[in-house]
This record gives sequence, C-alpha cells and structure tokens, in this order.
Amino acid sequence: MRVKATDERTYLEAVFDKLGFSKQDGHLLADTLVDADLRGISSHGIQRLAWYRRMIKDGTIVPTKQPKVLRELPGTVLVDANQNMGQIAAHLAMNKVIEKAKKVGVGIGVVRNSNHFGIAGYYARQALNAGLVGIALTNTRPLVVPTNATQAFLGSNAFAFGFPASPHPFMFDGATAAVAGGKIQVADKKGQELPGEWVVDKNRDVVKDPKEAEDILATAAFSAGPQKGGGLVTLGGNKEVNANYKGMGNSIVVELLTGILAQGSISADTVKGKHDFSQFLFAFDPAFFGDPETLKKDATAMLNRIRGLKHVPGKQTWVPGDREYRYLKENQQNGVAVDDKTYEEITAIGKELSVEVPQSI
Amino acid sequence: MRVKATDERTYLEAVFDKLGFSKQDGHLLADTLVDADLRGISSHGIQRLAWYRRMIKDGTIVPTKQPKVLRELPGTVLVDANQNMGQIAAHLAMNKVIEKAKKVGVGIGVVRNSNHFGIAGYYARQALNAGLVGIALTNTRPLVVPTNATQAFLGSNAFAFGFPASPHPFMFDGATAAVAGGKIQVADKKGQELPGEWVVDKNRDVVKDPKEAEDILATAAFSAGPQKGGGLVTLGGNKEVNANYKGMGNSIVVELLTGILAQGSISADTVKGKHDFSQFLFAFDPAFFGDPETLKKDATAMLNRIRGLKHVPGKQTWVPGDREYRYLKENQQNGVAVDDKTYEEITAIGKELSVEVPQSI
Repeated sequence: MRVKATDERTYLEAVFDKLGFSKQDGHLLADTLVDADLRGISSHGIQRLAWYRRMIKDGTIVPTKQPKVLRELPGTVLVDANQNMGQIAAHLAMNKVIEKAKKVGVGIGVVRNSNHFGIAGYYARQALNAGLVGIALTNTRPLVVPTNATQAFLGSNAFAFGFPASPHPFMFDGATAAVAGGKIQVADKKGQELPGEWVVDKNRDVVKDPKEAEDILATAAFSAGPQKGGGLVTLGGNKEVNANYKGMGNSIVVELLTGILAQGSISADTVKGKHDFSQFLFAFDPAFFGDPETLKKDATAMLNRIRGLKHVPGKQTWVPGDREYRYLKENQQNGVAVDDKTYEEITAIGKELSVEVPQSI
Repeated sequence: MRVKATDERTYLEAVFDKLGFSKQDGHLLADTLVDADLRGISSHGIQRLAWYRRMIKDGTIVPTKQPKVLRELPGTVLVDANQNMGQIAAHLAMNKVIEKAKKVGVGIGVVRNSNHFGIAGYYARQALNAGLVGIALTNTRPLVVPTNATQAFLGSNAFAFGFPASPHPFMFDGATAAVAGGKIQVADKKGQELPGEWVVDKNRDVVKDPKEAEDILATAAFSAGPQKGGGLVTLGGNKEVNANYKGMGNSIVVELLTGILAQGSISADTVKGKHDFSQFLFAFDPAFFGDPETLKKDATAMLNRIRGLKHVPGKQTWVPGDREYRYLKENQQNGVAVDDKTYEEITAIGKELSVEVPQSI
C-alpha cells in the first residue's frame, strides 16, 4: 500500500513525542525516515520504527539523553551520542563539521556510543544544503565475509558522498558490501532467487535461495552465539580473482574511521555488550578550490557525458543518485510504499501509544 | 633480473640530475620509483622512467619549473604543479596538509596541472610518517567502462589509505577499477589468459586474451581518435546485478575530487590537450580522537582477527598492505625485479645521458 508522506511524518512525530524524545529530536528522526521512504530506500524508512521501539523498551536507547560534544579543534569534533539515536548525534556533529568547514575550509567529526542513524546520505545532504561537499560513514552489525573467509566479520558499512550537480546532486549512498541486506528481503518478498553473487554459505558457495540467505545474515548480525558461517560478500563478489579484496579494503577503511577511531565496538562486536555503532562525518567548502557555479556546471557536464555513453542494447547508463531522485519526485506525488508487515507493526505501535495511523491512499 | 635497490636509486638520481631536475626533486622522484619497486608494485617503479623521459622531450614536463601554492586556509591548500612531475607537487601539498592537520586537526589539498605522481600510497605514508592518517587520490588516463556502457570514460583512479597498525600500517593502495592495467601486462608476459572479469570488449563480453585486452586499453588510454570500445570494468565486475555501479560510484568520487575540483582535465579528457592529471590529499591527526598507541593497538587487533578468520581450505585470509610489506622486506634483501624490456630502456637512457646502469645481481 501507499501512504501520504505528510501523514507518515505526522504519525512519526506523534510517536516519537509519546516515546519521550524532544520535539526537535522527534522532528529530526521522523524526517530521516520519511526522507528514506521518499527516496525509495524503504529498508531505512518507517520499517525501522518497530526496531527503534524495541531498543527504547530494552534500554539500549534513552530518548531523553542528549549528545555531548567531548572535544573540539578548529577542524575536528568528537561527539558522544550518549545512548540516544544516531540521527541526533550525527546531525549535531555534521552541523559542527559544516561550521568548521566554513571557517577553516574542512572539518571532520566522529560520533561514539551511537546507534542506527538512518541513511548515511541524509548527512551528506546536510553538507550539500550548506553549499559544501559531504561524506558520512557508519559501521553496522557484522554481515560481511572478508576475502576467502567463511565467517561474517565486517559490517555492511555505509558510505555516502554528495557533490553539487544539476538537476540534482551526485549522491552515492549505500553499503560498501556488494549489496545491503535489505535487497535480500526484497527478493524474498517477491519470491525471486538471488540473481547475483550476494551471499555465500559456510563453504563460500553462492546462495540463491533468499530464505537461506536471510537466515545466514540474521544469525551473523544478531547472534553472539554459534554462527552458521557465510554472509554477504564484499564488493567484487565471491572470488579473489575478481578483486573482492578491494571491496574488503573499502569496508575496513570504514571500520577504522568509525568503530576504531571512536573507540567503540567494531562491527564484529556489535552483537554483544553495548550494541553501539560509530559514525564519521566529513565536509569541505568547494568554493575554496573554485567558483561553486563553475564546479557544479563541470560536474554536471561530466555526469551527463556518462549518462550519454554508448551502452549495451536494452540496458541503461546512469550515475549514482539518479534513481533516488527519480523516486523522490514520484513518491512526493504518489505517496510512499509501506509493506504489509510494516503496516501491521506501525498499527500496533499506533494503538499502544494512541497515535492515529496513516491511511492507505 | 634483479638489481640492488641502492644501485637503482643511484642510477635514477643521476638520470634526474642530467634531465634538469633539482637535487631535491630528483631525490624525491627516485625515491617514489624505488619505493614502488621495493613494494613489488613494478608497474609504478623504474619501468615508468622511459615514459617520463618522453614527456620531458615533448615538453609535457618541464623539470626546472617549481610547483606553486595558489591559495591557503587553515585547513586547505590548492597547489599548481606548474607542468612538472606530480610527485613534486603532491609531496609539497601533503607536507602542507600535514602541517594543517597538526594545527587544526585535519587538512586537505588539491593539486592541479599535475601529472603522474607514482604510487598514491607514497603520500598516504608521508602522512603516516608524521603520525597521521592519510589519503591520496589521483585521476588517470581513461580506461574504465561505467555500468552498462561500452566505452571507456573513467580513469582507473587510484585510492590510497593508510592507518597506523603493527607490525606495519594498514595500507590500501590501488586502482578503484577492478584491476589496474598493469595486471594485464603481467598476465601477457606470463602467457596466461585473464582469469577474471577484468576487461570487456565493445559488446561488453569479457576478454580473456591479454593481448586483445592490452590493445583495447592502449587505444582507450592514448588515442584521442576512434575507439575500439570496451575497457577495464569497475569493481563489481561486468554485471550490474553484481553491483558494479558501486565500483563506478567509487571511481566517480575520485573524478570529482581530482579533475573537477582542480578544474583540470577529467580522465576522459587526458588523451588530448594538456594531458594533465589532478590529485587530492587528505590527512587528520588520530591523536585528537584518542591515545595514538591505543588506536594503533585496537586497529592491529582487528586486522589480526581478520587474518585469523576461518577460511576456504587452501586459500589465505589477509588484509590490504600485507603483500606489499612482505615484498618490501624480501626486496630490501634480494633486490628489486626489473623486466627485460625495462632494462633495455634504462640501458638506452643511461647511454644517452652517460649514467652508469645498475648491474644484475
């Protein structure tokens, strides 16, 4: 079914209010989920609400705690999310990073004791909205098998990068793994086999059955006990000969800049103890390097040349960001998709908290 | 054959002196080439000398020109390589970036009007040697076909990242493409078929014959005229279903941060006109985020856990950097490998400039 994005927002803000978040924090949390749904990234939209609700119930998340700036230099900031949602701390940290980039040209920030922060692209766009170039990284639950390994260890570790362009920014936002876990759930719901090298089992044989894949990933990501073995492959696929060690390299870079630098849990250790994630934020002012309008025009021209390249008949050429901005336009008009299971969950939460649930349109 | 690294260095410094570089610049250029050879990255070692020699002869490179700092903020620097080798400008820019990172916590630098700068890892290590975390990026000649496209457009675009660890740093250094072009030459020299999804032809069929692949890449990289079609694939391989658009995303990020930001040539346009490359450098001080020894210990522990994961029988688990530091140790003892063609070339250059050529050991 589809619901109006405005109804989704009203519902979420009311729910977050009832759960004890401040008006400002509730508004931000709702905005990150609605934004993901509008961009067709349903895995990071309202379907996360039930999980957030559970984390508040079990005390992993404390909605009234506020993030704290622990330390600052003119170009750097370290923020403690203080056991609240990642969105709140990452938004604060990126605002600090933006201020710094406007003064000294560049800024970076690290968030520790954090949690899920929605889509990484949200914070890259925060920088874009301030006229800057932005990057956001987060570690995640352990899902990914390094080159030749048969055990999940690395997170699917998101990387988002935004650069000004027309008619919309270049927006590269996704898991550093070959695919995000959400893609497997989508295939399962559609009753489709997994079409590529996405998940391997304990022998590193490629898994085609989405239910088997989901089972492998759920155990890897949420059980501190014995593992089934296997997991998502790194970008580059199953085989070393196709350079999957480069995908591993990208994922390790994110681990180092998040869990290690924050002195929090690395992805492999988020299945136990504090269940904390860490984030890394980066922004710089392109105006230092050249006239922003010229840079934007040059970037646009390059991206348009890629879109216009000769290609395999029947396939399309495109650049990262094209799909999500197309969805954004469509969903702003047609509403956002909500699957049945999610609708059941938000209905139950609505009942529990006496909040009116968005109606199907 | 193998030659002593010290003999290689003496030879190169003498050659660069005769070619008109300052003592300091010649020392740096020699160091970047010897360093690459020592680390087993022969594609970026002394075998580049003949190409450098040709660029000096045709006026692309002017050895007496010095790079210029065009603009600075406390966290940013813009450098003009001024038609000299990329090494000289990138080394200067990274020194500036390091200074800035030590003062304000972080620094970035862009180099324009540049050229080949050796291995990207050299500049990441420059940051490591100063106790910092470092990144270096460069665009290249056009070699890479974007997702679904049948024409080379993107560069193989290097990304290097260094983070302190023991017994050696985490060092991720290589092309953002599935493989670097040099790997195909190696396969050709060994008379081997290409073992993976590395190069595609004009129909996007995978090419197995290394000579055909070399032909496709040479035309793409060096001819401004009609193209054969095809090129290196992005990380993720030939098929969209295996997320090769993420590899494309990584490569475009490098294009934006180098050619676009520097207002120089994007990779696609380096086949004509100025033949300029651009570089992006980044460093930050990990000590701001935590005790450097603790961070190093934590990074080492994580990397050792990856090295120790259960794995496919007969295969190895390893992390980026392990191979090059193993080669470094071996080659410091046993000398560096120089192939026959390269030895012919350096012999000819030695004769021309009256410089003694290193002897086989």
